[in-house]
Amino acid sequence: MISMGDDIYDIAVIGGGPAAFAAGIYAGRAGLRSVILERGMPGGQMQTSYLIENWPGEKGISGADLTMKMKEHAEQYTPIREFFDVTSIGKEEDFLIRSPEGAVRARAIIIATGAEHKHLGVPGEEELNGKGISYCATCDGFFFKGKRVLVVGGGNTALEYAAYLDNIDCDVTIVHRRDRFRAERSIVEQVEGLKVDRLMDSVIERFNGTDEMISATIKNVRTGETKDVEAAGAFIAVGEVPNNELAKELSLDLDKDGYVKCDTRQATSMPGVYAAGDITGGLKQIVIAAAQGARAATSAFEDLSNPYWVK
Amino acid sequence: MISMGDDIYDIAVIGGGPAAFAAGIYAGRAGLRSVILERGMPGGQMQTSYLIENWPGEKGISGADLTMKMKEHAEQYTPIREFFDVTSIGKEEDFLIRSPEGAVRARAIIIATGAEHKHLGVPGEEELNGKGISYCATCDGFFFKGKRVLVVGGGNTALEYAAYLDNIDCDVTIVHRRDRFRAERSIVEQVEGLKVDRLMDSVIERFNGTDEMISATIKNVRTGETKDVEAAGAFIAVGEVPNNELAKELSLDLDKDGYVKCDTRQATSMPGVYAAGDITGGLKQIVIAAAQGARAATSAFEDLSNPYWVK
Repeated sequence: MISMGDDIYDIAVIGGGPAAFAAGIYAGRAGLRSVILERGMPGGQMQTSYLIENWPGEKGISGADLTMKMKEHAEQYTPIREFFDVTSIGKEEDFLIRSPEGAVRARAIIIATGAEHKHLGVPGEEELNGKGISYCATCDGFFFKGKRVLVVGGGNTALEYAAYLDNIDCDVTIVHRRDRFRAERSIVEQVEGLKVDRLMDSVIERFNGTDEMISATIKNVRTGETKDVEAAGAFIAVGEVPNNELAKELSLDLDKDGYVKCDTRQATSMPGVYAAGDITGGLKQIVIAAAQGARAATSAFEDLSNPYWVK
Repeated sequence: MISMGDDIYDIAVIGGGPAAFAAGIYAGRAGLRSVILERGMPGGQMQTSYLIENWPGEKGISGADLTMKMKEHAEQYTPIREFFDVTSIGKEEDFLIRSPEGAVRARAIIIATGAEHKHLGVPGEEELNGKGISYCATCDGFFFKGKRVLVVGGGNTALEYAAYLDNIDCDVTIVHRRDRFRAERSIVEQVEGLKVDRLMDSVIERFNGTDEMISATIKNVRTGETKDVEAAGAFIAVGEVPNNELAKELSLDLDKDGYVKCDTRQATSMPGVYAAGDITGGLKQIVIAAAQGARAATSAFEDLSNPYWVK
């Protein structure tokens, strides 16, 4: 075994979503003494998904069920400490990971802390989250194939959502609070070439839901007028925030949006620190997070067992 | 819809393993008109796995069962043409994909043709494949935790397998046909630091299997002596061959080992051609192949719908 004593882990995985579960499976199978540290309940953003249709092999599974399957699988190899809220990480010879629940020492760490979609913060939004309101067109667009949908936002992501939804025959209306989009020219022109409606200078004031439809109260910020618009769903794309507090504390290299930079082995700019899942940016999908977790754990094993590796 | 006519696909996926299945799911959900072209029966190397324990969410599933689940899932979005053996790909405005079964036109293609482990070609090897004999320590090592195993080969992969298996308390003997390893220094020294036995100048002549054990007849090529060695399993690491005939025909950039080079979006050196799974080299795991397939299909969608994209 690589471990140097009972009081130190080979690897601590910080986070509790699909990247962390896969890392736990691969680390344990490689014989590493590992632990998953999750600040709340496991599952990450996956846990709150009403229905997942793009995890290969499962035609349709709830986020809660897929979380349970992955969690039980990971626990066969790596213990999961829930409600272990890591507040700081110190680096000496090893990493000292502190939380109100106690401290953990580890020779390497995998940062899998995820990212969060910004919410509008309007009435009805939380109640309809997963029941008409979504923050990811690649994940949920297909549920609304051929139906009328709203896309809220005016940046690259909002316009990419509009193009994606238009391509599956949705009747798309973009709702944007400014008079012009703040996206790359090619994406703006792509959307201009599509049959997509726009409500510019417009903000959502509230959402109401019925059984099959949602209704959005939309206010024109220039004229002050409000109107109600019905749709099968609304995709909200007003930004995303990486959970990068610990990455910043470790002074890891981040990209311009605050995501952790890593190489194809999922190694970050600091030896002994790997990153996986939504915290690394890119396409935020469960299968991609899981693959990165598997790769990160394998890289950690390779480095920890390499006599020439300098931490 | 992006499609320009009934006789042309947006995307053709060549191959039928986990990368192809995931690409089919993501392409179809994005509204792309897609097809999976598999030269034999679907499943790729996954299909032949006796038991898979590292696909997140499944504690243990046969390769045949996971193949069936993924195949049925993919078929919800993308038809699979079995026994469609692509013999050549022509590039004009679109790609013309030819096979004895007929031709298919597509605006973009995903190469997911996989790779194959070299076999020793000795008696007993095929009969015991998956029943004691394995070609992947990351996949199957854990089944042999704490047991006596052989590792056949003397390159980087063989020595990495030896280190991996040693770390899960296996009693490892390396069998290598030459008098020295042809691996990187750091890996050789790593293995020299472990309690790993070596049979140098030695080749496997045959395998025999009993219920729980295999027996290998090993010949010393210098002395001509043979002896039988018993073990719970044997890991064969004598090389791997990427299925890169079509990639070569398209003159895609390959790495020194013949794997297709691609960027983080899975785009190859030729616009409109993406690659995913074992054909791209790296860590050959089902979850990684699936993630790359999802990413490749998403990249194809982005490029095909971008008015500035030049193919």
